[in-house]
Amino acid sequence: MKLTDVGEFDMIDQLAKIARESCPPSAVSRQNLTIGIGDDAAAWQNESGRTLATTDCLIEGIHFTKAITDWHDLGWKALAVNFSDIAAMGGHPRYALVTLGLPEETSTEDVLQFYTGMAELANRYETAIIGGDVSAAPAVFINLAVTGRAGKHLLTRNMARPGDVVAVTGSLGGAAGGLRILQAHRKPSEIGKALCEAFLRPCPRLEEGTLLVAEGVRCAIDLSDGLATDLKRICQQSSVGAVVEVAMVPLPPMLTALFGTEALALALGGGEDYELLFTAPIKTVEQVAAKAPCPVTIIGRVTTENPGKLNLISPDGQDFTLDNQGWQHFAHRT
Amino acid sequence: MKLTDVGEFDMIDQLAKIARESCPPSAVSRQNLTIGIGDDAAAWQNESGRTLATTDCLIEGIHFTKAITDWHDLGWKALAVNFSDIAAMGGHPRYALVTLGLPEETSTEDVLQFYTGMAELANRYETAIIGGDVSAAPAVFINLAVTGRAGKHLLTRNMARPGDVVAVTGSLGGAAGGLRILQAHRKPSEIGKALCEAFLRPCPRLEEGTLLVAEGVRCAIDLSDGLATDLKRICQQSSVGAVVEVAMVPLPPMLTALFGTEALALALGGGEDYELLFTAPIKTVEQVAAKAPCPVTIIGRVTTENPGKLNLISPDGQDFTLDNQGWQHFAHRT
Repeated sequence: MKLTDVGEFDMIDQLAKIARESCPPSAVSRQNLTIGIGDDAAAWQNESGRTLATTDCLIEGIHFTKAITDWHDLGWKALAVNFSDIAAMGGHPRYALVTLGLPEETSTEDVLQFYTGMAELANRYETAIIGGDVSAAPAVFINLAVTGRAGKHLLTRNMARPGDVVAVTGSLGGAAGGLRILQAHRKPSEIGKALCEAFLRPCPRLEEGTLLVAEGVRCAIDLSDGLATDLKRICQQSSVGAVVEVAMVPLPPMLTALFGTEALALALGGGEDYELLFTAPIKTVEQVAAKAPCPVTIIGRVTTENPGKLNLISPDGQDFTLDNQGWQHFAHRT
Repeated sequence: MKLTDVGEFDMIDQLAKIARESCPPSAVSRQNLTIGIGDDAAAWQNESGRTLATTDCLIEGIHFTKAITDWHDLGWKALAVNFSDIAAMGGHPRYALVTLGLPEETSTEDVLQFYTGMAELANRYETAIIGGDVSAAPAVFINLAVTGRAGKHLLTRNMARPGDVVAVTGSLGGAAGGLRILQAHRKPSEIGKALCEAFLRPCPRLEEGTLLVAEGVRCAIDLSDGLATDLKRICQQSSVGAVVEVAMVPLPPMLTALFGTEALALALGGGEDYELLFTAPIKTVEQVAAKAPCPVTIIGRVTTENPGKLNLISPDGQDFTLDNQGWQHFAHRT
């Protein structure tokens, strides 16, 4: 059977089972493990607190093309997508390990630019790049592994409770819109530039993740694969349903200006926004919104009905159907 | 300038500089950092001890081909090469993050076999596989990041001292010999099988690394790129010279039987043996040898002369010249 027959998510379920069973229950590593495969980052307990660890790759031709993304932005983004996972756990990044697989014809200036872009973001969040691996490769392959420190409690995908509202930081669909503009090789208009920036240089919501912890939020995920896919993950892992009123989903104004009625589909299914999606009692979310450095918008609620399912509601109260349910590697594309 | 003009090692020096300067000196992450880029693993201090972290990739067409290595062995080896870095610091592995970039036509059975091979070794050393990333890719790309706990002190590359002797665990050249047999697509003879095994399923010297710490050894490296290259790293980082008597380098008996006079070149320049190379006063090395679960052989000594340089001596007392000085990515091949 091929990967395209099972898709990324089923494959991961099977691999997680082998991984779980591989470590003896008596092992210190297993006893100290708080969160294994299945959340934004793994977490384990030390005498002195909890360590977080996550890894994410960017592969040429899959996640990026050199025609669209320059090396400086690529460095920034490679680190940002890992930081976003730490943010979604409510933690602080500390250390990064960097693997670069590079075709032989790669220029040294490009590699230095990559590191400079990464260092710019690392510096902002006081994270040290402490090691890595550099290898020849048939295409550009980038992998980062980032460790961090957890806050006083973790934000996890399995803590949504019926009665919670569903909220997001920032706005959605910008990155997907930006990618469309870049793929069309158009010189972006002034209003298109912000969307391109959202795709090329996402800002991990680390301050916001810390704020969520401080205000008592328990459930969060970062939006990497699109709202529909990522909210469904929360529903499945929390055994709850969710209703989202699509009219409440915050869109960047320029997204609607440039993409018209298509803007909503980009926001719901586009992915790569790296905003935080979280659930909590409405009062908690209002406190977060009052203190957050970015807009925070309530877009729906958590329900007991239809556990594991997401229900999108149109402004007229009808079910809203989304053709593209978000990104999945090895999925059949139609 | 292309990567092939500067080579892997010069490139890493330049990247390490950017990495070091990127994190503010006042940052907690930097203040707690004991070892950054430049050793087998990075290390940082917690209230409760020291954490080690390392990352290593295996790329199809560069590090392996599917014609030679099956998926089960590939899983074992991907973890083993990372464990070897932890062993070379004298630590214990605890947690592993796994990234797989896979062509769409990859079969699910192969991926499960990969995980099973990895789990087999993880289980042996009580290490938990705690997360990862799975992505489509144009070629098979594997990256692991492993964290561990340090022993009561670290084994580092910069602690060789004049007067130390140079020693190795096990024997050298087996992996390079095994690769030659496999590349020739010959069905290995009974005596060739052990060499193939050395290449396909290296055993990280974790017990030996712990023993080195217990006996007071301070300086070690794992042999991934070949004795000549890796000992030179110790010489450079310790600002010492080293003399190796090539006749003392331990070879697997079947290596000489199969490769004759070429066996020595495989042992000195071949790489991928994942044995530990270390230096210490002779008395310490004798104590290690008496307790080690594998052979330990003294092959040379550390000198004040020619700092940063390695001097290979033939049985007749003449300088021994090695054509292949070990593996370097992006190096000009002749």
